[in-house]
Amino acid sequence: MKTLHAQYLEDLGVQIFTRQGLDRERAEFIAHTLVEANLTGHDSHGVAYYSAYSNRINEGHIDVKADPKTVKETPSSALVDGGWAPGQVTAMYAMELAVKKAKENAVSAVGAYNCNHIGRVGYYTNWAAKQDIIAMMFVNVGNPSATVFNGTTRVFGTNPISVAVPTGEASPFLLDYATSVVASGKVSVVRAKGEKMPLHWARDKDDNPTDDPAAYRDGGWLMPFGEYKGYGLQFVSELLGAVLTGSRLGLEGGMPPSPNGILVIALNPEAFIGLEAFKEKADELITRVKGVKPQKGKRVQTPGEPEWETKFKRFEGGIPLPDETWGNIVSLAKGLGIEVDE
Amino acid sequence: MKTLHAQYLEDLGVQIFTRQGLDRERAEFIAHTLVEANLTGHDSHGVAYYSAYSNRINEGHIDVKADPKTVKETPSSALVDGGWAPGQVTAMYAMELAVKKAKENAVSAVGAYNCNHIGRVGYYTNWAAKQDIIAMMFVNVGNPSATVFNGTTRVFGTNPISVAVPTGEASPFLLDYATSVVASGKVSVVRAKGEKMPLHWARDKDDNPTDDPAAYRDGGWLMPFGEYKGYGLQFVSELLGAVLTGSRLGLEGGMPPSPNGILVIALNPEAFIGLEAFKEKADELITRVKGVKPQKGKRVQTPGEPEWETKFKRFEGGIPLPDETWGNIVSLAKGLGIEVDE
Repeated sequence: MKTLHAQYLEDLGVQIFTRQGLDRERAEFIAHTLVEANLTGHDSHGVAYYSAYSNRINEGHIDVKADPKTVKETPSSALVDGGWAPGQVTAMYAMELAVKKAKENAVSAVGAYNCNHIGRVGYYTNWAAKQDIIAMMFVNVGNPSATVFNGTTRVFGTNPISVAVPTGEASPFLLDYATSVVASGKVSVVRAKGEKMPLHWARDKDDNPTDDPAAYRDGGWLMPFGEYKGYGLQFVSELLGAVLTGSRLGLEGGMPPSPNGILVIALNPEAFIGLEAFKEKADELITRVKGVKPQKGKRVQTPGEPEWETKFKRFEGGIPLPDETWGNIVSLAKGLGIEVDE
Repeated sequence: MKTLHAQYLEDLGVQIFTRQGLDRERAEFIAHTLVEANLTGHDSHGVAYYSAYSNRINEGHIDVKADPKTVKETPSSALVDGGWAPGQVTAMYAMELAVKKAKENAVSAVGAYNCNHIGRVGYYTNWAAKQDIIAMMFVNVGNPSATVFNGTTRVFGTNPISVAVPTGEASPFLLDYATSVVASGKVSVVRAKGEKMPLHWARDKDDNPTDDPAAYRDGGWLMPFGEYKGYGLQFVSELLGAVLTGSRLGLEGGMPPSPNGILVIALNPEAFIGLEAFKEKADELITRVKGVKPQKGKRVQTPGEPEWETKFKRFEGGIPLPDETWGNIVSLAKGLGIEVDE
């Protein structure tokens, strides 16, 4: 395990991406979102993607110069063609548009297709909440990795959802998770560390529970969270993220990898109870829930709180990376002629 | 157990409610939504409410003559004061308004407060889907019955969510469930039948898993579904259903019972991929998922499919009611001077 400072990792990412043709602003933004994922404890969506994105640039799946374009628009909606730009660029474009429209017209929805992997979904909804807008995101991953309730093959991607709301003094509220028990990136993290998975994450190709990341990779599948209820949300992300926007279904498979389809919904509290009243009451609710008596030896935390705590810790103490992940980044950087403190 | 035809139960409901001052149209609508819940297999939200609603009318919590009113409005949003009218009336008013606005302006959101118990949430989203609009509903129940992840007391109501989308030839897609493992009405059904609950539904007042509906009633609590992920959705329903609309938090408790706070979000597929293309692709997805090889002895069904099958069966074969539930309805009807085929 190697521990590195966030700023160092971010600077390294900027060099990696600019040497592959991204302009500086874009490179900074993408590196920032990936490091932010590590900072908040979501290593599954962090700098391990420096290598994966670089491969996709080389293979022509990510067009580093492309710009997302709005192809259909009303005052409260838009459909965006991502043009296979870096996914983060398209996701941020969609979220900024949704927030602008919600500020002007109370509520909005923006969909996007031809969009590469967008990284950690909570990045965008959290940004919207800081602009005083309630935001939801439904994402279809586009590659099958999880089965359905009672199913025995890969059907849906890990299809994440996220909801964030503006708060006042209290911790931010941020729901952000895969609709499978875990994101497939979490399996990769376990594999990179040479560890075993809990048995309820995945099945092998013969539908046996397995703790071996390799058994998942070799024809196995992830399980939906919460039985038929989580399965329902997997399906919703596929319907809203892919079907509504015209993106590729997980079941269709093929290339490019991770053609994310995204739908953002944005709500302006001013159209309802009002922004200040919303923040005040949300703070009260968050404070009261944090005060609920926990089960023995456990804590009651609000969604977003564990991320907030981890960020504080890792900002000071650094980001721990498995040797394999760090080794891959070092090889990548060296191959691009970048000096690295191994 | 007594088995009764849907039409008979509905006619009986119309008599029960008209004798308590509801006009005929309203009585028909409410009886229809409750019988529809039984038909689709959701006995927790069915005609057992004939008695509960009648009590609430007698106690002055339901104002049978009140009309919901829009108190704040933009072309794509509205905030509705339900005026403590029957909850079904306010929920339908909100959904009709949301669908109208989504047809005209691509996307809409409508919130409502001062709203009594609205019954089965999927009734409204399913109606919207039949009008070719994608609909979501987030409902805050207003009385605490479920704990939070790692918590040991009642915090949230069963806070249901629902999503429905228009389809073509395939079965309708309808997600509709409590964010606790089960709705509290399901515990009542188990109790009325004199049966035991599965151990993962609830805890007693000392945080022990329990299969006894009485132990839940006497200071126990329901569990959130899917651990921290379901807990996140409980919280979202409270934030959107209650905080955003100005309805009562579950934690605040008190009277009236079940002051539901609701938020509807409606999306017009025409603003995105287009209605016909959406339906066609949704049908393809539903058909492909239904064709996934199931686990041994199980079936892969799409959300909404079990309800659809039960409705078909019960429409023909009748609705089975526990003796206690039927006995309560008979007493209620007789007390109102209505003749009943016991």
